[in-house]
Amino acid sequence: MRVVTRQDILAHFDRHAVLDAIEDGFKAFARDQAQVAPVIHLAFPAAAGECHVKAAHVEGDEVFTVKLATGFYDNPKRGLPSSNGFMAVVSATTGEPRAILQDDGALTDLRTALAGVIATRLGGRRGARTLGIVGSGVQARLQAEFTCELLGYDSLVLWARASEKAAALADSLRASLPDLEISTAPTPADLCARADTIITATAARAAIVRADWVRPGTHITAVGADSPGKQELDPALFARARHVIVDSVAQCTAHGETAHAVGAGIIARDALLPLGVALSQAPLARAEDDITIADLTGVAVQDAAIARCVWHRLDT
Amino acid sequence: MRVVTRQDILAHFDRHAVLDAIEDGFKAFARDQAQVAPVIHLAFPAAAGECHVKAAHVEGDEVFTVKLATGFYDNPKRGLPSSNGFMAVVSATTGEPRAILQDDGALTDLRTALAGVIATRLGGRRGARTLGIVGSGVQARLQAEFTCELLGYDSLVLWARASEKAAALADSLRASLPDLEISTAPTPADLCARADTIITATAARAAIVRADWVRPGTHITAVGADSPGKQELDPALFARARHVIVDSVAQCTAHGETAHAVGAGIIARDALLPLGVALSQAPLARAEDDITIADLTGVAVQDAAIARCVWHRLDT
Repeated sequence: MRVVTRQDILAHFDRHAVLDAIEDGFKAFARDQAQVAPVIHLAFPAAAGECHVKAAHVEGDEVFTVKLATGFYDNPKRGLPSSNGFMAVVSATTGEPRAILQDDGALTDLRTALAGVIATRLGGRRGARTLGIVGSGVQARLQAEFTCELLGYDSLVLWARASEKAAALADSLRASLPDLEISTAPTPADLCARADTIITATAARAAIVRADWVRPGTHITAVGADSPGKQELDPALFARARHVIVDSVAQCTAHGETAHAVGAGIIARDALLPLGVALSQAPLARAEDDITIADLTGVAVQDAAIARCVWHRLDT
Repeated sequence: MRVVTRQDILAHFDRHAVLDAIEDGFKAFARDQAQVAPVIHLAFPAAAGECHVKAAHVEGDEVFTVKLATGFYDNPKRGLPSSNGFMAVVSATTGEPRAILQDDGALTDLRTALAGVIATRLGGRRGARTLGIVGSGVQARLQAEFTCELLGYDSLVLWARASEKAAALADSLRASLPDLEISTAPTPADLCARADTIITATAARAAIVRADWVRPGTHITAVGADSPGKQELDPALFARARHVIVDSVAQCTAHGETAHAVGAGIIARDALLPLGVALSQAPLARAEDDITIADLTGVAVQDAAIARCVWHRLDT
């Protein structure tokens, strides 16, 4: 069994291979050809901490993945990062652990960002040029970088509740993506008025994007609502959407953006389009003026796909 | 994060410290002062394999444990052991992984054996001298060794379905425990007639020990029924027992020995005595002629206790 550091993982990271693997993982998940175990959750309230353990295997893969991820939110006060953890890569033919990828959460950030790219590529309308990013954290940055680089957006508009953070992210992205036209929006309404495609990547607990701000033809990928109590989108927006694409029907109706809309009777559970199904039937049927939503909560097949890819690169 | 080999783990293993820690773990579990997560299970039928992930934290412990255990039952055909896996020791104050104890199942064998010692010490009648062991595998050997060494039994009688395996185990134990009087029994009925205390440690899927074979005053610890479909004891025996001690009410009534007796209406769920409660109230109220049963299915607090002890010894 090999222990691989975060540095080595990132040095060997092949974004294109992982993108394809995650897409295949979602398709397998939709065909019921993946085992995704119920998530283990431990809570450490005295330390503002939590631990999740997720496990998955995609049928036919020679390895499966068990991910341990911790978030201890008092750590930054002590000069430590909040996120820690690893992915264990285990042989699906002998049960032997092959590698511990000690990524400290980096692979989760990457697989979440690449799922965003997959959903945005699927849902975004042809000719979309301006990407709007709501948020200013690690995930907002990755969604901006990956989406612009991989899907060819040439203009980026940013908004975050803390305007100085949005400005700092804009400056930093100008350095890494010099060909991109980058600006900040004074309000989320202004961002909605300018963006063809919107990605929300915040930890918000109440809707930021109001239904009547969103222009016809907009695609929205929401990645923030990964656990109960979070919300980024106005549920009324779901009434305007031609397609609501969900990474997991069970999770999205339990605690995703979709849960608020289903709970309010705005959209029926039966009307949801599983991401893996939509990918298998791509391209998506959408008219120029249709609004589409992709609600991503994170599925362990993404972990299985990214860990397998990293391990393959290291093993060969 | 440190990776510790099986060899290093065993070289630093302190049986007495672990025994105490597991006992404390059971008490905390009974007081609801332990988090024990639902178990993750993945199945690999094409390779006759399975994977379990268990996680637990005992309130106040500075670390928690996530255990990954695989059993791939075709491995021996390829010259590989069936069991693989590790326990991750993680800080409960920062979420940082401290150690991977790559025990390949050894710590699970040891914590199961030590839980047997704890239950047998609690349930066995004063003056018990002859221990009967049903089974001939790794767990049967450990139960025999630990129980005789730690609880002072001076006579041992063995029975297993394959008589040559029982004979081989007897020979091997004569070498490691030269002061012990060791014999094999021709039938399980004969073993029951000779033993004061019986430990069953098999993978049987139908009752081996019949109710009318068991003499008054006998204590029985059953450790085999760790998953659905397994059974070692005649459910009718439960009608004769003064105490039925269970490591976990939920697990024992779902798939332990107790499940068969509760399912048949022989004993009520309310009559079960949680091991942690019994340990906190020890000594057990029992008369010379009472029959007592301890049903052990394995609880993740045992993993948390043993991993913490091993890590403490390595860390200091």
